[in-house]
Amino acid sequence: MRAYADRLAEAIARKGCPIAVGIDPRPERLPPALLQPPVAPLAAVEAFCRGLIDCLSPVVPAIKIQVAFFERFLGPGMELYFRMIATGRAKGLLVIGDVKRGDIGSTAEAYAQAHLASRDAADAITVNPYFGTDGVTPFLEAAAKHGRGLYVLVKTTNPSSVELQDLQVSGGPLFEQVAVLVNRWGEAVPGTDRYSSVGAVAGGTHSEALRRLRLLLPRTPLLVPGFGAQGARAGDVVGAFDERGDGALIASSRGVAQAFEGQASTDPRGAPRWQDRVREAAEVMREELRAALRQRGS
Amino acid sequence: MRAYADRLAEAIARKGCPIAVGIDPRPERLPPALLQPPVAPLAAVEAFCRGLIDCLSPVVPAIKIQVAFFERFLGPGMELYFRMIATGRAKGLLVIGDVKRGDIGSTAEAYAQAHLASRDAADAITVNPYFGTDGVTPFLEAAAKHGRGLYVLVKTTNPSSVELQDLQVSGGPLFEQVAVLVNRWGEAVPGTDRYSSVGAVAGGTHSEALRRLRLLLPRTPLLVPGFGAQGARAGDVVGAFDERGDGALIASSRGVAQAFEGQASTDPRGAPRWQDRVREAAEVMREELRAALRQRGS
Repeated sequence: MRAYADRLAEAIARKGCPIAVGIDPRPERLPPALLQPPVAPLAAVEAFCRGLIDCLSPVVPAIKIQVAFFERFLGPGMELYFRMIATGRAKGLLVIGDVKRGDIGSTAEAYAQAHLASRDAADAITVNPYFGTDGVTPFLEAAAKHGRGLYVLVKTTNPSSVELQDLQVSGGPLFEQVAVLVNRWGEAVPGTDRYSSVGAVAGGTHSEALRRLRLLLPRTPLLVPGFGAQGARAGDVVGAFDERGDGALIASSRGVAQAFEGQASTDPRGAPRWQDRVREAAEVMREELRAALRQRGS
Repeated sequence: MRAYADRLAEAIARKGCPIAVGIDPRPERLPPALLQPPVAPLAAVEAFCRGLIDCLSPVVPAIKIQVAFFERFLGPGMELYFRMIATGRAKGLLVIGDVKRGDIGSTAEAYAQAHLASRDAADAITVNPYFGTDGVTPFLEAAAKHGRGLYVLVKTTNPSSVELQDLQVSGGPLFEQVAVLVNRWGEAVPGTDRYSSVGAVAGGTHSEALRRLRLLLPRTPLLVPGFGAQGARAGDVVGAFDERGDGALIASSRGVAQAFEGQASTDPRGAPRWQDRVREAAEVMREELRAALRQRGS
């Protein structure tokens, strides 16, 4: 398969927007229309995911599937996770598996086998940097071999991220040291243009950190979660883009995928109106990002 | 269920040794006796795990199951992982799920649901500290509620662990800052005696760090991987124990569970001699640890 970096750039260009919608299905927050008649929780989760993929695939280039919400259903949940990756990819979406795995040696190889090399593997996954280079190497090798990508956690959205990630080391926060490593790791998995297939996760709630990382990491695509429900707005995330408007993928989970909440779930004809709300939320996000990028450019 | 800290202390006292054998089943390194007649890889992995549990349960208090070697078989592999936890617990072993999960908010809750709250959950799991307190809180809450334990990664065995974990912050390495957090987190899940149900993973290859962590973390049980195949010897790990000889669980994976390699796998009567080699290796490890602790005490 072609390098993830190239497939990512192409998908963003084709859809004209740099958005990954996060799919974090909570059984207690599904569209009511999917629970009539009552079905097993995992079947309802599957219907929700399929509905999201259907209504989002014409609008956005990528989805980010959070494995934890499938793993909580143990073995059958993991089977559904890989099935939803295949479903998203069959609809032309890039699929990022938000697995945040991290380990060393043959253990990291086993994770890479599952999440980057198997037939049903996602196009890219998130990984944890705490082990350093020899922990990430098996993931890098599998990504290079199979045309997959990685996004390494650098600066996360949550308030407690300051406790370790912002500790001062050699004149800067720890996360900038992680960024230096990520930049080096990216050399192993280049794309044909500017960017590598090894990206960094950097929370949209940290607009100053985003600007700083964009400068520190000229080859590294950023995956920026936290848009919408977690508080980041278009103006906060524009610093993640380069001067061409490339180099970042903005992720929103609840703000798009749960946009039907508090809305009537069916219209008089019984059509699945929840999907209209989701698609509209994705379109609004697209326009907000376009306006913010235009404004910055002017 | 009673606090993990208490169940751990009792299990160690009952078996008279502080050992967790790591189960990391690689399909290409199984005892040849289990592959005659040929069986599906996952069935062979299951037979190996059951055989290990059978021969180890009279000798050691705990096993540590590495989920990645099951996850590589996707959904069916995860089902087997949880089944092997149940099998180990039914044989009276404490089971540590080496899952190294880490995330925030409702995602961390979903992982905790799978790995600490489900019927088939392990007695304790490993978690990654990179997110800080709000990432660990859902795991702490689930551990307290369900009598489970956590081991937070502090200092890992691999050479690249120096890249982040040993960076100097406020006069000491980063991993000591993580240790300070772990100590605080442990207050939420106390046992009845000295130790908490929140432990720290600290590699046995770092004997000086182990001594330092034992002092910094008076309430925190240590899980010390790297014994044997990764190079740590009994004299290297004694610093992980307190003055009573408590406070640490020493983990060996390949050194015990793969002890049959390079040995004849069956005796003339066809008995599964590989299990004898494994049990003997566990007994040798037990004696080495006892001797090292006696020597230190004298």
